[in-house]
Amino acid sequence: MLEKPHQRTETETLGEFGLIRHLAGGFVPRLESTLVGVGDDAAVIKQHDGQLSLLSTDMLLEGVHFDLSYTPLKHLGYKAAVVNFSDIYAMNGKPEQLVVGLACSNRFPVEALEEIYEGLALACSQYGVDLVGGDTTSSRAGLILSLSILGSVNADKLVQRSGAGPNDLLVVSGDLGGAYVGLQLLEREKQVFVENPGAQPDLEGHDYILERQLKPEARRDVVEYLAEIGVLPTSMIDISDGLSSEILHLCNQSGVGCQLFEEKIPIDPTTYAMAREFGLDPTVCALSGGEDYELLFTVRQSDYEKIKGSTLLTVIGHMTPDVNQAVMVDKSGGVHPIKAQGWTAFGNTKE
Amino acid sequence: MLEKPHQRTETETLGEFGLIRHLAGGFVPRLESTLVGVGDDAAVIKQHDGQLSLLSTDMLLEGVHFDLSYTPLKHLGYKAAVVNFSDIYAMNGKPEQLVVGLACSNRFPVEALEEIYEGLALACSQYGVDLVGGDTTSSRAGLILSLSILGSVNADKLVQRSGAGPNDLLVVSGDLGGAYVGLQLLEREKQVFVENPGAQPDLEGHDYILERQLKPEARRDVVEYLAEIGVLPTSMIDISDGLSSEILHLCNQSGVGCQLFEEKIPIDPTTYAMAREFGLDPTVCALSGGEDYELLFTVRQSDYEKIKGSTLLTVIGHMTPDVNQAVMVDKSGGVHPIKAQGWTAFGNTKE
Repeated sequence: MLEKPHQRTETETLGEFGLIRHLAGGFVPRLESTLVGVGDDAAVIKQHDGQLSLLSTDMLLEGVHFDLSYTPLKHLGYKAAVVNFSDIYAMNGKPEQLVVGLACSNRFPVEALEEIYEGLALACSQYGVDLVGGDTTSSRAGLILSLSILGSVNADKLVQRSGAGPNDLLVVSGDLGGAYVGLQLLEREKQVFVENPGAQPDLEGHDYILERQLKPEARRDVVEYLAEIGVLPTSMIDISDGLSSEILHLCNQSGVGCQLFEEKIPIDPTTYAMAREFGLDPTVCALSGGEDYELLFTVRQSDYEKIKGSTLLTVIGHMTPDVNQAVMVDKSGGVHPIKAQGWTAFGNTKE
Repeated sequence: MLEKPHQRTETETLGEFGLIRHLAGGFVPRLESTLVGVGDDAAVIKQHDGQLSLLSTDMLLEGVHFDLSYTPLKHLGYKAAVVNFSDIYAMNGKPEQLVVGLACSNRFPVEALEEIYEGLALACSQYGVDLVGGDTTSSRAGLILSLSILGSVNADKLVQRSGAGPNDLLVVSGDLGGAYVGLQLLEREKQVFVENPGAQPDLEGHDYILERQLKPEARRDVVEYLAEIGVLPTSMIDISDGLSSEILHLCNQSGVGCQLFEEKIPIDPTTYAMAREFGLDPTVCALSGGEDYELLFTVRQSDYEKIKGSTLLTVIGHMTPDVNQAVMVDKSGGVHPIKAQGWTAFGNTKE
């Protein structure tokens, strides 16, 4: 009854990034300890002795971010934690303390929540993180997980999105597109099951892409490897929404352009084959698929010798001076502007 | 399709605290920096130079924690932030950095989210907190807010729930029960409106209890006052679920009992009158109502002289040696065990 009439702008018109920038972008940090606020993978807070804290939050909703008809609850807990850790690795930091908010309707018995917590516990144990707090509550519809992670990094090791310079090499860990084609496979088998409940899902031989979707890992190994070989990236981000949108974040926040070479984008053969089976372009799966949680970063040309032998890393392009020129060179030499077509959490649900 | 059969224990059978204890209680911190994990108002993390970080998280769901038919969105944002800050004050700390997860359906235009952010901004500005990060996403049903707050405190100023000793005085700030009777009033006027949409809500003259419900404050002033007069509480908690359940938290975690005097419980005259109008016992509103966000703490007997003149504080009882004897002495001298009857977020929703 206290409501007042609204001008009405639909959230879809801004998109997920546009919306958070619109809403939170005006918050200028005032505390001396707040070094970085909204706009990177994590906020950066100054502690004593050159030590920094990193703080990040993620929310996962049933029906938007996951489908329980093919997501085992333990995997869901594991993935929710790992996705959160990935934000801290993307700042070259170490995730340390996790808090978990969990809301669910009475459709979920205690045993279901225990399975989620088993997954959280496994992830915490694998990555050396402590689960230190939580909030549980009921929801009117479905399951909601909200995680916040506190991490740390030495001030001289912090890597933000904004440090890439012209001519820096653009590097990605692992391979891309797998999580997306894994999701397509799960959706197809779900459809088969809906149409014929007696059918058994045909998932055999697809372990790799299924694991990429259902139980991804965060690239702690890459962060540790870079420290070991003495390479400090000039900028970094994790790939949650697809290669192209993450490249654009690095370009925009660093004020540089980039030249990406399609033929260099690492795609696993099983990802490639499954994309083809679905009639999808494997490159598009890598560019726009998202949820791979690989690290995308830039290094100085002078560091090339140090990284070139690594099986963890692939150089896929280099940065250029003009921020308006973020392009991909395709396999036949054609040049295309890179567009953000990553997955968006807006525009696909109705109430 | 990967689901397996479950033994089924309903979440209601454990209650909110029982559930989080059951799920997260087994997580034993392994990092040297994690001083306190699950089980207090905030987790405690060791930084350098005797400085501690405090981390806490809260989740608020439409239809469970708030009703938008009488909650202005700006107030909702303000309250969500303040409730989160209150957890840090309850550790005798200072809230500093806030991250906000926000999920909503397309029923909410951008302007609605802007109002929520205005409320968040106002709270941050009032309490000297930086909003440093966020996650926005769509939801299938309603509005969900998930906030996590990072705070700090000097190691020698940290106050936990577990430090109360026998004979310590039990002290509460402000007055109790107002938020609960404010809610009853809003619910009554909503019902009138539902039955007769032409009716105007009769809220006049009830500013105090409405503000207690819709726009509560966290007791930063109390924390600062205690520091000023040189009193360090032996234990502390904020009153989110009602006096009785918070007293039991202090007793159980400190291993002491308590004697609470009904006649000492501070209740504002307007709260008292409105409770009577609703046929409610004002003491029960204070004991079980919740959402007052006052601070409940214990101090040594020797600190009595320092606090006795304060208009902010009321001594309502004292702690006793036997953890199994948490009792209230009523106005006619009768003795009753204190029972947790606080508000619970479980057991009131169906899907």
